[in-house]
Amino acid sequence: MAGYTHLFVPGPTNVPETVRQAMNMPMEDMRALDYPLLVNGLFTDLMKVYRNETGRAFIFPSSGTGAWEAAIANTLNPGDRVLMSRFGQFSLLWVDMAQRFGLDVDVIDAEWGTGVPVEIYAERLAADKEHRIKAVFVTHNETTTGVTSDVAAVRAALDAAKHPALLFVDGVSSIASIDFRQEEWGVDCAVSGSQKGFMLPPGLAFLSVSQKALAANKQAKQPRTYFSFEDMIRANDTGYFPYTPAVQLLRGMRAALDLLLDEGLDNVYARHHRLAEGVRAAVSAWGLQICAKEEKWNSDTVSAIYVPEGIDSADIVRRAYQGYQTSLGVGLNKVAGKVFRIGHIGWINEVMMCSALAATEMSLLDCGVKIRAGSGVGAAVEYYSQAAKPAVAKAA
Amino acid sequence: MAGYTHLFVPGPTNVPETVRQAMNMPMEDMRALDYPLLVNGLFTDLMKVYRNETGRAFIFPSSGTGAWEAAIANTLNPGDRVLMSRFGQFSLLWVDMAQRFGLDVDVIDAEWGTGVPVEIYAERLAADKEHRIKAVFVTHNETTTGVTSDVAAVRAALDAAKHPALLFVDGVSSIASIDFRQEEWGVDCAVSGSQKGFMLPPGLAFLSVSQKALAANKQAKQPRTYFSFEDMIRANDTGYFPYTPAVQLLRGMRAALDLLLDEGLDNVYARHHRLAEGVRAAVSAWGLQICAKEEKWNSDTVSAIYVPEGIDSADIVRRAYQGYQTSLGVGLNKVAGKVFRIGHIGWINEVMMCSALAATEMSLLDCGVKIRAGSGVGAAVEYYSQAAKPAVAKAA
Amino acid sequence: MAGYTHLFVPGPTNVPETVRQAMNMPMEDMRALDYPLLVNGLFTDLMKVYRNETGRAFIFPSSGTGAWEAAIANTLNPGDRVLMSRFGQFSLLWVDMAQRFGLDVDVIDAEWGTGVPVEIYAERLAADKEHRIKAVFVTHNETTTGVTSDVAAVRAALDAAKHPALLFVDGVSSIASIDFRQEEWGVDCAVSGSQKGFMLPPGLAFLSVSQKALAANKQAKQPRTYFSFEDMIRANDTGYFPYTPAVQLLRGMRAALDLLLDEGLDNVYARHHRLAEGVRAAVSAWGLQICAKEEKWNSDTVSAIYVPEGIDSADIVRRAYQGYQTSLGVGLNKVAGKVFRIGHIGWINEVMMCSALAATEMSLLDCGVKIRAGSGVGAAVEYYSQAAKPAVAKAA
Amino acid sequence: MAGYTHLFVPGPTNVPETVRQAMNMPMEDMRALDYPLLVNGLFTDLMKVYRNETGRAFIFPSSGTGAWEAAIANTLNPGDRVLMSRFGQFSLLWVDMAQRFGLDVDVIDAEWGTGVPVEIYAERLAADKEHRIKAVFVTHNETTTGVTSDVAAVRAALDAAKHPALLFVDGVSSIASIDFRQEEWGVDCAVSGSQKGFMLPPGLAFLSVSQKALAANKQAKQPRTYFSFEDMIRANDTGYFPYTPAVQLLRGMRAALDLLLDEGLDNVYARHHRLAEGVRAAVSAWGLQICAKEEKWNSDTVSAIYVPEGIDSADIVRRAYQGYQTSLGVGLNKVAGKVFRIGHIGWINEVMMCSALAATEMSLLDCGVKIRAGSGVGAAVEYYSQAAKPAVAKAA
Repeated sequence: MAGYTHLFVPGPTNVPETVRQAMNMPMEDMRALDYPLLVNGLFTDLMKVYRNETGRAFIFPSSGTGAWEAAIANTLNPGDRVLMSRFGQFSLLWVDMAQRFGLDVDVIDAEWGTGVPVEIYAERLAADKEHRIKAVFVTHNETTTGVTSDVAAVRAALDAAKHPALLFVDGVSSIASIDFRQEEWGVDCAVSGSQKGFMLPPGLAFLSVSQKALAANKQAKQPRTYFSFEDMIRANDTGYFPYTPAVQLLRGMRAALDLLLDEGLDNVYARHHRLAEGVRAAVSAWGLQICAKEEKWNSDTVSAIYVPEGIDSADIVRRAYQGYQTSLGVGLNKVAGKVFRIGHIGWINEVMMCSALAATEMSLLDCGVKIRAGSGVGAAVEYYSQAAKPAVAKAA
Repeated sequence: MAGYTHLFVPGPTNVPETVRQAMNMPMEDMRALDYPLLVNGLFTDLMKVYRNETGRAFIFPSSGTGAWEAAIANTLNPGDRVLMSRFGQFSLLWVDMAQRFGLDVDVIDAEWGTGVPVEIYAERLAADKEHRIKAVFVTHNETTTGVTSDVAAVRAALDAAKHPALLFVDGVSSIASIDFRQEEWGVDCAVSGSQKGFMLPPGLAFLSVSQKALAANKQAKQPRTYFSFEDMIRANDTGYFPYTPAVQLLRGMRAALDLLLDEGLDNVYARHHRLAEGVRAAVSAWGLQICAKEEKWNSDTVSAIYVPEGIDSADIVRRAYQGYQTSLGVGLNKVAGKVFRIGHIGWINEVMMCSALAATEMSLLDCGVKIRAGSGVGAAVEYYSQAAKPAVAKAA
Repeated sequence: MAGYTHLFVPGPTNVPETVRQAMNMPMEDMRALDYPLLVNGLFTDLMKVYRNETGRAFIFPSSGTGAWEAAIANTLNPGDRVLMSRFGQFSLLWVDMAQRFGLDVDVIDAEWGTGVPVEIYAERLAADKEHRIKAVFVTHNETTTGVTSDVAAVRAALDAAKHPALLFVDGVSSIASIDFRQEEWGVDCAVSGSQKGFMLPPGLAFLSVSQKALAANKQAKQPRTYFSFEDMIRANDTGYFPYTPAVQLLRGMRAALDLLLDEGLDNVYARHHRLAEGVRAAVSAWGLQICAKEEKWNSDTVSAIYVPEGIDSADIVRRAYQGYQTSLGVGLNKVAGKVFRIGHIGWINEVMMCSALAATEMSLLDCGVKIRAGSGVGAAVEYYSQAAKPAVAKAA
Repeated sequence: MAGYTHLFVPGPTNVPETVRQAMNMPMEDMRALDYPLLVNGLFTDLMKVYRNETGRAFIFPSSGTGAWEAAIANTLNPGDRVLMSRFGQFSLLWVDMAQRFGLDVDVIDAEWGTGVPVEIYAERLAADKEHRIKAVFVTHNETTTGVTSDVAAVRAALDAAKHPALLFVDGVSSIASIDFRQEEWGVDCAVSGSQKGFMLPPGLAFLSVSQKALAANKQAKQPRTYFSFEDMIRANDTGYFPYTPAVQLLRGMRAALDLLLDEGLDNVYARHHRLAEGVRAAVSAWGLQICAKEEKWNSDTVSAIYVPEGIDSADIVRRAYQGYQTSLGVGLNKVAGKVFRIGHIGWINEVMMCSALAATEMSLLDCGVKIRAGSGVGAAVEYYSQAAKPAVAKAA
């Protein structure tokens, strides 16, 4: 097949050229004398991306799932009561993991297409006078449905109840793409992974924690070695790792952090919002619906789009892949067959989004969905052109 | 700037990933014992792409301009009369070179937007009873205006006149993209370069010649070393080169030839035609005109598009580059300011073309050209989806 | 600093050019329709390298430490008695992990410079009539001291005692470099990592298991998600993974497995032995000693070399790195300051080993160790030239 | 074959990792608005490497042979008398080219193993009262024999004779490696290529000229297009090129110039001298002879080494390549079969040179040359260790 492939799944995301160049390297000794120069800088800048000022961060050679596990195994004990909600495949899997680790999970099932039910969380926290709840879990961005939850509101609920529970956030598909403020929001364990907003290949999990989480670590009894905070801290404090780190990815990470900080986090967030708005304009123009029930749930990193009755969304995804070398996201679990997903996260720009929309249009047409050719791309083109006006004026 | 850049100039073209991988290599000795294994295969397969069965091919470490020079310096002598035509920047430059080399050039100026005036060529050839004309030059694809000329018709004119002149073809932006048949058309010197249909970085010039050209070489008196046929032949016959070849590009060339021959030349030509048709559909939908005066001149590798009166086409190109990380071609010489160009040559597919069209739409809108957003991309989407129908049916 | 760096730590090892090329890639969707084509082939060929015919293999995005953990967490329960031995930093860490996971570890401390004390293992197994021992652990190659243990002999001891305990092998620095036969030796859990004999960057852990280990998995109660066999099996059986795999490394792994199988495992082992013998000849010529107490313990993947009294081995390593861009291995734990290590594992050849020896000679001389310049390299040159004789004769 | 290949031909030389990373890039438009930022910087820094302060430089997409041709075609006319000398394959080829271009060449044949006969040049210049000699040619470093000539002495001879002839220097295997001072020595045309001291793949020729050469250009009548100064100057003055430049190499060139200027030219020259001295110490220790007749002719970039009577040097080169994945240089022309060559030019360091010497020792032994194993490497090890002493002392 000729021409580049087009990757619009919500992870792995497109890797910037400078990151790719940085990873095109011979191997190196992770015990080298000057290796701490690299390592220390990575932690410093990773903390900046998390806006974590007083805690510390961990880098595990694993997927984001590993950081979920690290957070639980290092700060909680079997039998601990935790408050979780479930409204998509990833929040569901996190609940499953918590249960496997013996936590006493108070699960609230919310409608798919909505996010963390802050009001219910607030009630439970207010009611928990004895502070039996040890941790509250928030899936910041549910990748299945394209729904973003309000972390700040959960923090407000905790504060209102004067509740000491830890606040856990799954930021795998939000951090480095959507506004995230660990310090301001008092997030104790914030999980992310390399292959989303961090624009790296998969293989690194990030976990940024507060001092409160580090204190909880001292009481945690789960067996742990690979994901042990203590082992990591001891080694990281000297600029090294307790076992062989993924050296190639760490060099790529250096380049990726440089890109994020050079662009500026607020500009990164604004870009993601602008690109997402274009996609949502296209969906409207097609006469289709996104999964998010209300505007406040809209995700700026991924859109899950319902296909009309009688159409299997998996056919759209298959057609895009086979006919147009374009990877879109399939529907998972409850929304399998019903939605397909367009990732708009990471190293992307307006023209790339238009190509995703054009590929989608061709696939929809090929599969018999009645849309007007060009309507979606046109809506995005118009939106992006309008959004770009100030820059044009300034350049003039 | 975030996201990939988008390259739609008519060369350098996008390099396939396997070519890029092949060029990611340590240096090697071009005098190695087994180097001829690489070299011989390159010549064999290069000849296949040219559809040259009885002649031979040359690979120079230079741009395509070098192969123009090699063709002239190795087969003609100062004072030789040649028949050329001029209808764009590249045909113009070739005339200039011929004049510098002391050829007696009979130049026919054709309207820009048309190609080689075959009828006039036929007349001149018929009139040249004494066979003073030693060579006839054809710019197969004039990149300035997006015009393809009819090489077969020029051959027919030569045959009709029973004229022994050599036939020179500039195929820089046609060979490996547009139907080209050296043997069948009796082309004596066919020039191309690595950075167009061959999908390589610039740095290699290809020149494929007939036995008749090789015979002419024996009479040619121009001083030559770098571009000498004789030196090349002597070395190439042993599997080596007379001076250090561009070894990195030769490894890339191996991968590129594999891609071309695996796809199949006829499929490559069909793909270029399909992609070009989509672009032309978009131009029509915008209400704009391409430079080619008649359908028969339409180029399947590049379209030059007129902007409306009062608009400077250079602004469109600047806006696409600065606002949308997209490289379009500027207007050159007579059509500077009047046309911009979209390259649809090389390693491209439908979705890439849609991204070029979307970038163009945004740039046109930003510069005040009145088009309906989505109209051009929509026309292409519709065309490509229709064109893809048979594949969908077959897959079902 | 000019010139290539020289990497002779026992991991990460040098990455072959074809592997590096394969990893120079854009990201891809790990849920793509055709992704199982890649995944299934990886498992098939990974099993071939392990010589595991009836079990199955796992690929975790982690370091080798993760596969240690996966083996324990998936097949054993807290309180289970296991037989382990300790004679270097890595066997020591594995004991520590087993203890953290609540196993009842019968630890035998052997002298550093020796390996698994098979006779003592045999006694303990013979004495354990009630089969309280659930698993026997073998560090196949102790990277700290350059000592290889006899896995087949441990299997023989188990068989002689008709003991049903599981046999665990840490093959991180042996598998794909030193003779390893999972099926023949009845190894139940064999751990390895990407950055040693597999010639990949760090980031993948391999665990190849027997049917007996899979049966034990059904009784294992440790909480597990990231390293869960069950989750992996369910996903792997469809050609996918339960969470995002390290896609870039998997493409590199394809290239690395091709290299191993093309060279032939027996040839790979013979090459490692030949290269190691040259290093040992050099050490003798210098008048120094390796850590391995007897020839039978000699490791073909790493040599730990004692420096004379009064010399700090860390100075040798520092000098090699700062003065000669060469990474040697430091001494760890009990042998810190006393030994330095030369890795001779992975993508290496005779000339590379000579460069390691030359760098070592210069560093020894610079640090005041009295050796004759050229003595070590000369011994290796002589050995390699002799070893190469048959090939020369054959070529003649 | 396992392990890295080892490249010690006198070009192409080893490419630094940062250069390789820089060339791992998507294609780009050489007419982009901001392309002059790259181009202008390249010319500025190229002039620094040449130590050319008042002239200008050219970058041609060609091999070094192309720059030879550019120098002649742009500044001399057929019939012009020039003074040249011939003492190796490359000086011989340059004479041949000059003759093909119709120059009236006064050729002085010097013994192979010596360089430019300055005394004879001085005589001829002094005798040429009418200034019929238009140019004097110096092959600064004859790669065939490993001989460096004294450019400054030729300049002195010109000055002593108050002779206005142009001074041409072939610096292909010297510039950026051996002391070269265009301004100070009054060199009018200095030729080089990318694949030697510039540490790039082959594909670029550099030509740095004086104002005097530019003045001569105005009188030169040879037909020229590809290598035309005038066309280049017109385009370069705007930050562009007259035809498509080798964009991938230009990005690599940026990285290579950064490396050269960061290391500092004097340090680069000192490194080449140090490395060369180690090689010469090894040759002595083997009891062999280099081609250079006297110490003053010793080249710091390549050593040509005589094999004993009865040995074919081509066998050594073949054995090194087939048995040890090491590329050495063959003997050319008069010294074919008699010498082999070790390149010590470009991106190299002490350990790399030791690996070249070890590969050579093994190959010599395999081919029956009686040397003591380790003697050559040992001599180099000792020399390099001594040479490194100041650095060790300083670090202590």
